[in-house]
Amino acid sequence: MKKIGIGIIGAGRIGKLHAKSITYHIPEAEIAIISDPVIDVAKAVAGELSIPQYVADYKEVLKCPNVDAVLICSPTDTHADIAIEAARLGKHIFCEKPVDREIEKIVETKKVVEACKVKMQIGFNRRFDHNHKRVRDLAKSGVLGDIHVVKITSRDPEPPPAAYVRVSGGLFLDMAIHDFDMARFQSGSEVEEVFACGAVLVDPAIGKEGDIDTAIVTLKFKNGALGVIDNSRKAVYGYDQRVEVFGSKGMASGENDCPTTVRVSTAAEVSSDKPQYFFLQRYMESFVDEMKAFIDAVRRDAPVPVGIDDGLKPVVIAKAALKSLRENRPVRCDEIYRF
Amino acid sequence: MKKIGIGIIGAGRIGKLHAKSITYHIPEAEIAIISDPVIDVAKAVAGELSIPQYVADYKEVLKCPNVDAVLICSPTDTHADIAIEAARLGKHIFCEKPVDREIEKIVETKKVVEACKVKMQIGFNRRFDHNHKRVRDLAKSGVLGDIHVVKITSRDPEPPPAAYVRVSGGLFLDMAIHDFDMARFQSGSEVEEVFACGAVLVDPAIGKEGDIDTAIVTLKFKNGALGVIDNSRKAVYGYDQRVEVFGSKGMASGENDCPTTVRVSTAAEVSSDKPQYFFLQRYMESFVDEMKAFIDAVRRDAPVPVGIDDGLKPVVIAKAALKSLRENRPVRCDEIYRF
Amino acid sequence: MKKIGIGIIGAGRIGKLHAKSITYHIPEAEIAIISDPVIDVAKAVAGELSIPQYVADYKEVLKCPNVDAVLICSPTDTHADIAIEAARLGKHIFCEKPVDREIEKIVETKKVVEACKVKMQIGFNRRFDHNHKRVRDLAKSGVLGDIHVVKITSRDPEPPPAAYVRVSGGLFLDMAIHDFDMARFQSGSEVEEVFACGAVLVDPAIGKEGDIDTAIVTLKFKNGALGVIDNSRKAVYGYDQRVEVFGSKGMASGENDCPTTVRVSTAAEVSSDKPQYFFLQRYMESFVDEMKAFIDAVRRDAPVPVGIDDGLKPVVIAKAALKSLRENRPVRCDEIYRF
Amino acid sequence: MKKIGIGIIGAGRIGKLHAKSITYHIPEAEIAIISDPVIDVAKAVAGELSIPQYVADYKEVLKCPNVDAVLICSPTDTHADIAIEAARLGKHIFCEKPVDREIEKIVETKKVVEACKVKMQIGFNRRFDHNHKRVRDLAKSGVLGDIHVVKITSRDPEPPPAAYVRVSGGLFLDMAIHDFDMARFQSGSEVEEVFACGAVLVDPAIGKEGDIDTAIVTLKFKNGALGVIDNSRKAVYGYDQRVEVFGSKGMASGENDCPTTVRVSTAAEVSSDKPQYFFLQRYMESFVDEMKAFIDAVRRDAPVPVGIDDGLKPVVIAKAALKSLRENRPVRCDEIYRF
Repeated sequence: MKKIGIGIIGAGRIGKLHAKSITYHIPEAEIAIISDPVIDVAKAVAGELSIPQYVADYKEVLKCPNVDAVLICSPTDTHADIAIEAARLGKHIFCEKPVDREIEKIVETKKVVEACKVKMQIGFNRRFDHNHKRVRDLAKSGVLGDIHVVKITSRDPEPPPAAYVRVSGGLFLDMAIHDFDMARFQSGSEVEEVFACGAVLVDPAIGKEGDIDTAIVTLKFKNGALGVIDNSRKAVYGYDQRVEVFGSKGMASGENDCPTTVRVSTAAEVSSDKPQYFFLQRYMESFVDEMKAFIDAVRRDAPVPVGIDDGLKPVVIAKAALKSLRENRPVRCDEIYRF
Repeated sequence: MKKIGIGIIGAGRIGKLHAKSITYHIPEAEIAIISDPVIDVAKAVAGELSIPQYVADYKEVLKCPNVDAVLICSPTDTHADIAIEAARLGKHIFCEKPVDREIEKIVETKKVVEACKVKMQIGFNRRFDHNHKRVRDLAKSGVLGDIHVVKITSRDPEPPPAAYVRVSGGLFLDMAIHDFDMARFQSGSEVEEVFACGAVLVDPAIGKEGDIDTAIVTLKFKNGALGVIDNSRKAVYGYDQRVEVFGSKGMASGENDCPTTVRVSTAAEVSSDKPQYFFLQRYMESFVDEMKAFIDAVRRDAPVPVGIDDGLKPVVIAKAALKSLRENRPVRCDEIYRF
Repeated sequence: MKKIGIGIIGAGRIGKLHAKSITYHIPEAEIAIISDPVIDVAKAVAGELSIPQYVADYKEVLKCPNVDAVLICSPTDTHADIAIEAARLGKHIFCEKPVDREIEKIVETKKVVEACKVKMQIGFNRRFDHNHKRVRDLAKSGVLGDIHVVKITSRDPEPPPAAYVRVSGGLFLDMAIHDFDMARFQSGSEVEEVFACGAVLVDPAIGKEGDIDTAIVTLKFKNGALGVIDNSRKAVYGYDQRVEVFGSKGMASGENDCPTTVRVSTAAEVSSDKPQYFFLQRYMESFVDEMKAFIDAVRRDAPVPVGIDDGLKPVVIAKAALKSLRENRPVRCDEIYRF
Repeated sequence: MKKIGIGIIGAGRIGKLHAKSITYHIPEAEIAIISDPVIDVAKAVAGELSIPQYVADYKEVLKCPNVDAVLICSPTDTHADIAIEAARLGKHIFCEKPVDREIEKIVETKKVVEACKVKMQIGFNRRFDHNHKRVRDLAKSGVLGDIHVVKITSRDPEPPPAAYVRVSGGLFLDMAIHDFDMARFQSGSEVEEVFACGAVLVDPAIGKEGDIDTAIVTLKFKNGALGVIDNSRKAVYGYDQRVEVFGSKGMASGENDCPTTVRVSTAAEVSSDKPQYFFLQRYMESFVDEMKAFIDAVRRDAPVPVGIDDGLKPVVIAKAALKSLRENRPVRCDEIYRF
């Protein structure tokens, strides 16, 4: 069977990461070309991974005849336009999250992608994390009964620079967006109403940009279940990523991954490893697995596991959370967008 | 030093439990008399624990000259009146929670108790739990830095009969009241605003009584910290009681206690014990320790660790939660009562 | 039903501990009298626990008409003689371990006890520990299949004074004796051969007394299983008491008990509690439970759970271990004593 | 800097594994050629990993001018001869364990390798396991004080076919050899005396071949510490690989790795994942890391971390264990070979 030809748009951290996944772990695909406006960055990755062609302009990636699918790893504000162009050229799309910060833009992308009948997978890699996936598999299997409560703890080890939150859309759009996706994934349902409670406790500079760094978001799901997410921009002990699903027949809960299992017992105390430091450590395997799933969907002409609606809905929840925070009241998702 | 003379009012489950604590673990105190309207119940406990006198009428306990302090273990709606009577007779008071379901009644009790200069401790035993207390001690020590988030999971193994919730005041007043106290205890601050989200997922009969059986309550504290409590009337795996305090320098988190530490590894899986079944198992030591603290405060004429204000404030929070649930909006505690 | 009348011989640490167990936890028994050569010690315990009579001479305990059973908590070298006297007077016996340091003396005691048809239970309390007992119950239930390996880790937090080991018979007789009993208990079989390997690594003064402070003892059981015990006189992190049973269908393993379940995560590390400090903390409940089992056996005229043979066999194993250590070769138990 | 040219001898499971490590994870090295007597096996690996040349005869690997170092991944009985040939041609050597089953042959190899001044690293990959390495690092750092006891549990998930043990040299040479290396590694000392205790409990067919399937081996180290290893050919719950080092100042202990951290709590029990199934899962990273260390030593002309003596000594210990088992007595290593 012919290998799937891949074009990568954006050779930064995440673009390179996906390039490695394909090169080292997915023999069914082959990278034909990589682009980056900073040509030396594209060149370096192409050199390291023996990618035959590198260019500055992403349009050359889209035009490359050996490309069956593109990975959009460029800055967020370019995602939607590139995706639309790619779709019109009949290329399958893997797009980093969020598709866009504006709902209208995502909806427009969705229309084009669907009209062009190409596949589009969104990079919500955490669904592929071994722990979170196991929790979901248990819930789906019925072992937990009806789902009553989904609890997500999601804390970063370090806050981003305050300047970043100005453009990123803030905590709900750049960070909690993953958790909103996780809430949908774990509940197997849709979020109807959101109440967000936030505070500036980590860094006053973040507050000056009009954002928060600590949040608790309560969710009501269509199936009647409740959800709660707690976020912090700074957990000094490392990346804290835990999911708990509680149901009528039981609970499944995942702990953080640690570098080793070793415990040291001394006269002073018993100590053990801190969690993995950040997402590159914790979620490395999930990045490989999401890419395998994408390639597999393309090859078998099957639906992608995380589609364009999965890219849209967390943005709606994030907007509802933002509105809830500002107006200090619960906000229904259909106040933001009606599906 | 003379032993503290104790009179116990109510010889039911909790009255007997306290009677045993004093008899077996607190040589500094001595039970002089026990009362119960069902005289045979009082007689049985008196017989088992060699208590010299048992009566039907609690007024005889209050009048007994050998009684320095009374333990009020009668039904909730009698707590306040008995406490007021006891205070006027100069008796120190240990009173089971809640002092009353109505705020005015608690305020009235508070005034009398303060005027009579007797001590009054409220039975929020969970503050004395080895795990919760250790979390609080770590927070107080500064190891965790400024407190950002207090998270409490509190789930019962079995729902009460629906008839019970009709008279108990419902989940917030009969169950979460402990968690509201715990939130104040762990945060070292006061709750300013409450948002409650609830559902009937365990037992429709509870819903018919106008109550909920599953809840997520978000709290804003005066010191800027956020809090979240998740409650369920039914965790099939047993009593689930966990507290996590997250701060600028670290996190302290307690797991449930289990009967044994034994793990079994087989071809099918690795399994271990479920949590202790319910509060009599999980919190047994805390009941002894709260009583030790009360006796100690009486003997040394020191302030009690859990005073009448600690009895009042969780009821205010519970009322705010109830109002929040009904009106689906955040409710400030000072809408309920102004201190 | 009449309460079982108890006489306690020896009011030291362990005698007082048993006295408390009976007073507070075993309503089916009643302490009639307590003796101690240091009369003030007996007096103090009698006062605290409302024991009606205290004496200096243990013979008065044996003669006391209200005594159905005696607890022998005096120094080791008096155990056998007192047990023999008690048996001849028709008293049931609970005897602290070891019955004696000499096999002949234990055998003699056994003969008298059996001839007099009284019950005699040996104080191997660890069989009643919640963790160890759970491991054994799992093994007995068949969940683990055929037993292949029994592993016991047993380390004290502090070495005894070197002077003590001179009279105690050394590590194998004063400390590992519990582990030899545990090995028999967990394997459900008898030890046939012993190889002991020892070293002086903790305290040279112990070595000067001809003893060791660190040991690894390998056991061959009659049923074909293997066993291994590792001992140390000093684990700086506290009392280390773990049992692991490995079989054809699975493994059961117990961890140490800790004061709390709380973990603290900071920028430096994740830390948790050390194990309980020593046997009074770790094994407290097991002391109560062994006494309950003894009283129950007496009341129901049923066999005691830990009989005189269970007192004899670990001493035989200890002697074999000692011989093995000295001669640096495996020693069969029947070289020491033939049953 | 020029890449290190690699030739791989043997394209079976372990040869292919190393080939992948180099291709995907070690940009400083480049595979020039791979050989396998079954040419199609060599061809397949070469094709998958874009290795420029594949041959049937290993001698062509040795002669290949682009080869700086060879990886000997052929059957055990060819290791020594190939290593000697390679050394004489000036190639550095990475050799799978054991170097040989006969001590004389290893000694001969050692002489040639040393005379030819090439590097030779032995494939004791477990030293590079994240957990075991962390335990060792802690011991070396002094955190544990003087080492008193090294405990190793090493159990396979499935026994090999009985026919295999006939040629492999048996449990001590094909399985425990890793543990003997681990004992040396963790103790930082040499084994002086061995006592082995074995049984046939898993598979009678193994017994018919004159081997055992269950063993407990006690070790005395030169530095005075004691060691114990327990082995089983069959742990139904998966690969059980734990190391514990106990010292005067503390203990470090590693647990097994599991696929996920998820726990499921139901009315029946709390369950969690079994350990990783076997060495390809558990030790995957360690294979990469040992290869990185080898390439690094070659590039920097530094000593290899696991040298030819480290290949010889575990074989001496294994032979001593075998003799001990047969003669049922402790055997000194210098009875087997004098260094």
